[in-house]
Amino acid sequence: MTGKVIGIGVGPGDPDLITVMGARLLSVASVVAYPAPEDGDSLARSIAAPHLPEGIQEIAIRMPLSANRFPVEAVYDNAAKKISNQLAQGDDVIVLCEGDPFFYGSFMYLFARLAEKWPVEVVPGVSSLTACAAVTGTALAALNDVLTVLPAPLPDETLRAQLTETDAAAIIKVGRHLPRIRSLLAELGLSGQARYIERATMANQALGTLDDNDEDAAPYFSMILVHKRGTAWSGAGAQ
Amino acid sequence: MTGKVIGIGVGPGDPDLITVMGARLLSVASVVAYPAPEDGDSLARSIAAPHLPEGIQEIAIRMPLSANRFPVEAVYDNAAKKISNQLAQGDDVIVLCEGDPFFYGSFMYLFARLAEKWPVEVVPGVSSLTACAAVTGTALAALNDVLTVLPAPLPDETLRAQLTETDAAAIIKVGRHLPRIRSLLAELGLSGQARYIERATMANQALGTLDDNDEDAAPYFSMILVHKRGTAWSGAGAQ
Repeated sequence: MTGKVIGIGVGPGDPDLITVMGARLLSVASVVAYPAPEDGDSLARSIAAPHLPEGIQEIAIRMPLSANRFPVEAVYDNAAKKISNQLAQGDDVIVLCEGDPFFYGSFMYLFARLAEKWPVEVVPGVSSLTACAAVTGTALAALNDVLTVLPAPLPDETLRAQLTETDAAAIIKVGRHLPRIRSLLAELGLSGQARYIERATMANQALGTLDDNDEDAAPYFSMILVHKRGTAWSGAGAQ
Repeated sequence: MTGKVIGIGVGPGDPDLITVMGARLLSVASVVAYPAPEDGDSLARSIAAPHLPEGIQEIAIRMPLSANRFPVEAVYDNAAKKISNQLAQGDDVIVLCEGDPFFYGSFMYLFARLAEKWPVEVVPGVSSLTACAAVTGTALAALNDVLTVLPAPLPDETLRAQLTETDAAAIIKVGRHLPRIRSLLAELGLSGQARYIERATMANQALGTLDDNDEDAAPYFSMILVHKRGTAWSGAGAQ
């Protein structure tokens, strides 16, 4: 009997936004793997921490700061090997994923390396997309709206064309692209319909309009939501 | 002391895909409201059922089959009034929402009627979007992919233009539009990269390619996922 891989979306940040299924699987887990920086704490692990049993075996998948010194591919090859060793011994291995495993997650790198040889299950999670909508008290999309998810590192012309043709957009991975995105939204006359959200549902969450915010960069876990019908569905008092 | 409205995303169908926060709030709830058909069971209520305490007071928001006889606006006005009465008495009222409250949900109709007068909190849920990706074992989007959510009732020219300009798409609300969407994807050469999902994570879930499926219509809760890089990230053995 060999084990299986279970990719669990731990949700956007608040540990209570993991699913009941995810929490239950974690409570009986024996081995857990998660992405982590070269030094310091893993965000996915910190979200899952209240649900982890004592004495669980941990595989931290540490990303080097410089991908030149040690390529990302090798990091995932290495992690897949460690996970495979556990599976061969009959242990299930849970892989913790921030948000949802298949929504812009790094889980796909492990999935690509493991799914042909081992059984893999995926437990979906609350993504940053719906978490950001919840904390701003604004519908993401409704009725027959087109909703477009746009990574901020895309070139200006792509972002401009996509923003022009959609009803609602979620701009993700804002980071150092914040000033460029701010200018682009202003150029398109969409600043007033844009909401900025940083670390949604985490203790250090921050919210605001783009006009409030004159920073040169945003954290990686930040998002800008735009809806062309603006505040028609929004209201005061959301969480 | 008046109560507050709490919109809870109950997730895509499996009752264990509600969040820990959602389940905990339900376990101590005294009043719950939910959308329901004119006759018969509410899907949102059936998903939440294992988490509802005995003796909870229920407000079913029943949608008439014919909106001519009794306009939808009046149904929500009426529901908002019943909910307001409970809030005025000091009860919190939980509104159950399939998937996530702000992802193409009917919750916005209540939110628009209640949020100016009463405190409203939203607990995000696992949306059908990530649930469908999980059950097909395919990443929705990764890296700098553009991901577009497209309601199937949109006109052909809109769908064609959006599908041409995106990397990945989720076509929602497929229903009776299935034959039209199938033709459109074939015309664009995308049939091979499309996956059809019906009632994701529910007991009667169904999955397949578009070629397997020659039905004239799909259930309302069906989705087609398309990724132009196709099966590069998919693998056998997902849940």
